[in-house]
Formats: sequence, structure tokens, C-alpha cells
Amino acid sequence: MLLINANLATLDGSDAYGLIQDGAIWIRGGRILWAGYHDRMPDEARDQEALDLDGRLVTPGLVDCHTHIVHGGDRASEFESRQQGATYEEIAKAGGGIISTVRDTRRASSDELLASALSRVDESLAGGVTTLEIKSGYGLDIDTELKMLRVAREIARQRPVRIKATFLGAHAVPAEYAGKADMYLQDVCLPALEQAHAEGLVDAVDGFCENIAFSADQIRTVFEKASQLNLPVKLHAEQLSRIGGTQAATAYRALSCDHLEYSSKSDIDAMAQAGTVAVLLPGAFYFLRETKLPPIALFRNRGVDMALATDCNPGSSPLTSMLLCMNMACTLFGLTPAEALAGATMNGAKALGLDDVGCIRAGNYADLAVWDVGHPAKLSYLIGSTPLHMRIFEGEIA
Amino acid sequence: MLLINANLATLDGSDAYGLIQDGAIWIRGGRILWAGYHDRMPDEARDQEALDLDGRLVTPGLVDCHTHIVHGGDRASEFESRQQGATYEEIAKAGGGIISTVRDTRRASSDELLASALSRVDESLAGGVTTLEIKSGYGLDIDTELKMLRVAREIARQRPVRIKATFLGAHAVPAEYAGKADMYLQDVCLPALEQAHAEGLVDAVDGFCENIAFSADQIRTVFEKASQLNLPVKLHAEQLSRIGGTQAATAYRALSCDHLEYSSKSDIDAMAQAGTVAVLLPGAFYFLRETKLPPIALFRNRGVDMALATDCNPGSSPLTSMLLCMNMACTLFGLTPAEALAGATMNGAKALGLDDVGCIRAGNYADLAVWDVGHPAKLSYLIGSTPLHMRIFEGEIA
Ligand SMILES: [Zn+2]
Ligand SMILES: [Zn+2]
Repeated sequence: MLLINANLATLDGSDAYGLIQDGAIWIRGGRILWAGYHDRMPDEARDQEALDLDGRLVTPGLVDCHTHIVHGGDRASEFESRQQGATYEEIAKAGGGIISTVRDTRRASSDELLASALSRVDESLAGGVTTLEIKSGYGLDIDTELKMLRVAREIARQRPVRIKATFLGAHAVPAEYAGKADMYLQDVCLPALEQAHAEGLVDAVDGFCENIAFSADQIRTVFEKASQLNLPVKLHAEQLSRIGGTQAATAYRALSCDHLEYSSKSDIDAMAQAGTVAVLLPGAFYFLRETKLPPIALFRNRGVDMALATDCNPGSSPLTSMLLCMNMACTLFGLTPAEALAGATMNGAKALGLDDVGCIRAGNYADLAVWDVGHPAKLSYLIGSTPLHMRIFEGEIA
Repeated sequence: MLLINANLATLDGSDAYGLIQDGAIWIRGGRILWAGYHDRMPDEARDQEALDLDGRLVTPGLVDCHTHIVHGGDRASEFESRQQGATYEEIAKAGGGIISTVRDTRRASSDELLASALSRVDESLAGGVTTLEIKSGYGLDIDTELKMLRVAREIARQRPVRIKATFLGAHAVPAEYAGKADMYLQDVCLPALEQAHAEGLVDAVDGFCENIAFSADQIRTVFEKASQLNLPVKLHAEQLSRIGGTQAATAYRALSCDHLEYSSKSDIDAMAQAGTVAVLLPGAFYFLRETKLPPIALFRNRGVDMALATDCNPGSSPLTSMLLCMNMACTLFGLTPAEALAGATMNGAKALGLDDVGCIRAGNYADLAVWDVGHPAKLSYLIGSTPLHMRIFEGEIA
């Protein structure tokens, strides 16, 4: 396939977007064989059947590198209670909060989990996503954690999208282990990780390091097991307070630390040194009405790559649109549209340990999004619109 | 037509949503003939061909009662400059701001204006809207103001949607009248209003009462002319400061005052007395990073009806989705999901002077939205998703 008459935002050039006006992309075997200015195209490419894109913008397919898109139920009635003035305690007493999602996820059959996830995945793909990370973590028992991860793998079989599955057994302490977090890790979380890994269900290991979840030492226990299994790690860190998650994660050369509203300078130095990506989740910041901003200027100064993700989940970010996430990152966190696009492509890929998606470059997978806009800034400027013309996954129009 | 097996949020009952489980709607001649519990349906209705909605939620079609959806160009590059740190002064010096939209709107042909507006209108309709208000106000000369209003009327001919056209000649003082606002009103704004009215292009008259636009006295001049022409009025008031707009508007029994972040108690009393609707525009609040919240508790206390609208415009709210607007009204302004749905239906209709749309009631137009959700709270809970199953406009599936 040969795409012509396109404006490329390659994310692989000297300027921030890697813009190529009047560009072309030559695709073979699902990979980009060549991309550049049309008039410098190799002669062999001219024999290909060409798809004329009428001057549309082509970007790398979007990468949503942090989601909990597989889950049972929703939390709309909890949202309504909260808006009516209920406190978190009252909601918890009424059976709300993460516990309700754990209950709904345990109860759901694999088919039910898959069907509800696919409806959200389809929204995500309709918004230009070609790579999607999916976490477990609403099972908190061995069977349900494995059920979630198998559903994640099944999504990759049923839809044209690259799925990365992340084990998040250390997401919360389930009710039956209340006050016994260490016992939960030993009895459930670590055995679940071993079994899931043995079944080939795990691409990375994540945890939630927070006072309401697991301490930095407990997270180290999980990461130690991940190391033994040769799995990369990432961490929900410094979202609501600073209790040392980033230091634990960077010691294991984490692919990413995520949230990071409370990151300190020394955390950011450690991330820079370890090559750890900062994954920003403006949807959760917005939905939870947080006011403490992640330290964007410090990430920039220390050269820490910033990625964006929806954090798609029923409790704190019922969001599937990466474009809306980009607009929120600009509007709420002050990113530039170029930073937002890099965060939704190249840096998202890096946060997943992928080096062959996220930019338009010879050799990479031909995962692309074609947009009905002239300039990439417009992708971040629109609030919630989705001007997607076409999605290409591994060289096929999808 | 007969819709059965539906959950109705009629907005016309004793509870906030007017919920009817297992409801039915009987439609004839574009109007609702009967709506209620299926088992209480009149016998004659049982002969109709029934459309089974599988338990889906049916709400009134959404009403977007404040938009500038007809305009030339976009302001994505201005957005990018702003994110890169440019000040408003620098943007204005570089030819940005409202002046750039006036320039692009004047330059655009009617066909170009129509085509660009239709792409946004189609997004709006895909989000469940059946009634859409459209303002002029980027012409600021007689020809272009009329051109905008004619495009608004043309949209009603080309798409299945109810359009209300609002004359907004008093939107800004154009460059050629800088410092001569009164002269602009006499030379351009009032003659344009008269001509537009004579052509049947005007359903209401609006203005922008703000230090950077027109004073309350200048707005009175415009409203006096509207009164003579027997046209209802509404006003952009108390958005960035409090300079008396609401008092001027309520003296003319305005249908609505819009924005209202800086409303005082006495403003709200005047609105309550005049029956003026408070139109809240959370998209602009969000995009402009405002921090002063409109006084929601006071609107509630004084019984002022609150409507929601996208304010769809290129400079401060490039938003077309009423559902995202509802989520923002909850998240940013603290509305309940029931208030948000009333604001996007019944109260939006009231802000346009319409008493036969906005709720599901015998005699009203059969403008309906059918949603793939079980409970109406979910419409406000989701961030930017659009679970629309079907739109019905004047009794026809649209
Ligand atoms: Zn998360
Ligand atoms: Zn406006």
C-alpha cells in the first residue's frame, strides 16, 4: 500500500511534530517500508497502488498506555450520590467505591466482561487508538485476575488493535484481607502473577503505591517477583500523596510511573536516570477535581518523557477518548499540543516498552491514524470531537 | 409509530427525571399522542406497528440553547500559541482573537460557512441534539450578519433538527469602529437587525455585555429595538465581571441570561422574578481555565431554572457534545445528573421560548433520543462518550 497526498506528523523529525507536507508512506507486510516527502519517494514505490488522502493529516496511531478498560459494572449511581452530596464514607458504607467494581468483576462471566470491554474498546479505536494497555486488578483473587487478563488477550484476537496486558494484583487489598495486605500479597497476588505469567498473559507488572493501597516496601515484594520472572514494571505513584513509590519503581528501572501529582525533584531525577516515562492521567485529575498539578516544568527540565493515557476506569476516569485526554492535558496541565501528541504516540509506546510503534519511521509497524484536519494542533484544540477519517493497523485499513 | 419496551426519562413527572420503567410512546403527525406505562396504554395504540427498544433509555432530544456553531476558520493555532506561553496581547497583535474569526467569517462564502457548520452540526446531532440555537455575531457588518443567519436557516432545511436563530450583532465592536461602539450600534447593528427581521431570519436578539464589548446602556438600545420588533431577548451577562447586564436583560423579561459566573444575589432575584433561565456554559469555563464558579446554590434557592449549552465557538469553547457539557456541569459546577439532564432538555427549551419540546408529554413534538444506557445518570457520568442508539426528530428516525 502507498499513501500519498498526506501531511505527516511523523513524531520523528527535527521539529516537535516531525511535520512533512505533501508526504507519502509506503507500507509492506504490515510495516512502514519508507516515509517522507512525496517527491523523494523511491522509484520502486511508484508502482504501488496509491491511496490519495486529499491532504489529510496522518499521525502514528494513538497509544493509550494506561487503562482499566476491562471491568464489571459502572459507577454511575455512585457518581450521582456524590453529586447529591454523599461523602466518600457514605458511599463506601452503601457498598460503593472500588469494592463494588471488584464485586461486579468477580460476578461477571468472561463473556460479559468481554462484551462490556469491547463496547469501550470500540470507542477507543473510533478515536484513533491502535495500541491499548489493559490492566487486571479488579479481581484481587487468583481466578478473577486471570479471567481479566484472558479477556485482555481475547480483545487482541477480536479487534485490530495491539494489546499490552499488565498484571495489577497489587491494586487494592480486598475486603477478605482487610488489614492483612502482606498476607494478601503472599496468598493471592504473587501466586496469581506466577500463574498468569506461566499462561503467557502478562506483559508488565504494576501496583498502586498509596496509603489506601500498598506501601513502597510491599510494592518492592511484587517487583522482586516480577524481576525473577523477567517482566518489566510500572507503578501508580504519587497520585494522592508521596510515600516513596517512584523511588521503589526506578530502582527496578520501571517503564513508567503514572499519575505523579505529588512527585518531588528527587523522584524526577530518579526517573530521568532510570529512563522512566511519566504517564499523566488528566481524566482522573479532572473527574476527582484534584487541584495539585503534576510538576510539568520539572519533567521538561529534567528531560523526562511525558506520556498521556485515559486511565479508563469506572471509579475515577470513565473516559475512552485519547483526543479528549490530549485536550485535558493541554487545558488542565498546560502541555503544548505537540507535547500532547508525543504523549499520545511516541512516549505512550515507550511507557509500554515498545520501540516499533508510536512514530512514523521505516521499520515500524504501519499503525496510523488519518485525520480530517490540516494541522496536528487541532487534535488537541477540539474539546471531545473525533475528526478521525481512517485507522490503519499493521498496514490494513481497520 | 409506537415505541415500546423503553425506560422513559420524561422530565415531566414527580421525581427529578420523570422516570417511567417499561414505558411506551405513541407518536402521530410528528407529535407525542400519548406517553406512559406500557400497561396503561390506550387500546387504540395497540394496533400500531411497535418498535421494541429492548429496555433502552429514552429522553427528550437534547437542546443546545447557546451556540456560535456558524463561523469561519478555527483558532487551533491561537490555542497552540497560548499553550506555548503567548499572552493575550501577543495573540491579539499577531492577528488572533475574535478579530480573526470575524475576518474568516467575512471572507467565507455562504457555501463554505454552511459546509464547515454542517460538519459541527452533524457531530452535535450524533450526540443526541434535536434543537440547536445558532447566533450571528462574527459578521459585525450588515451583509455578513445576514449571511450567517441565512446559513442558520439553511441548516434547518438540510438536517433533521429544529434551529432557533439569534441575532448577535452586539457581540463585539469591529476594528473599523474601534472606540465608537455607539456609532457601530446605530450604523450597523440596529439596521442589520431590522433587515434580518424583515427577512424572517431572527427568532431572538442577544448581546455581549462586558467591559470588552458593550455596556448595559448600549445593550438597552439593542433591546429597545428588539422590543419594537416584538422579538424576545437574551444576554451574555456577568461572565468576566459584573457590569449590570442581568438587570438590563430582566427589565426586558429576557428568556435567558448566559454565563453568569459573576451574578449577584440581586441579579438572581431579578431573574427569578422575570422568569429568566440561567444558561450555564461549562465548556467556556473549562477552556478559559476560569476559577470563579457560577452561584449554583443561589439559582437553586431562588428557583431559577438552569439550562446547559455548549457555547460551541472557535475562541473559547470548541465543543459540540451536549453529553460532555453535562459531565462538565456536574464535575466543574457541581450539578446533579438530574439537573444536568433537565438543563440539556426542558430548561434549554425554556431558554429558547419553546414550550412544546424538552419533555416527553402528550402534545409535544416527538423529538427524542434513545440511549444504550439503563439509567439517565450514566449520561452525565461518562466523560465524552456518546452512547446514542437512535435519534427521533418530529416522529421520524433521523
Ligand atoms: Zn490506573
Ligand atoms: Zn456565547
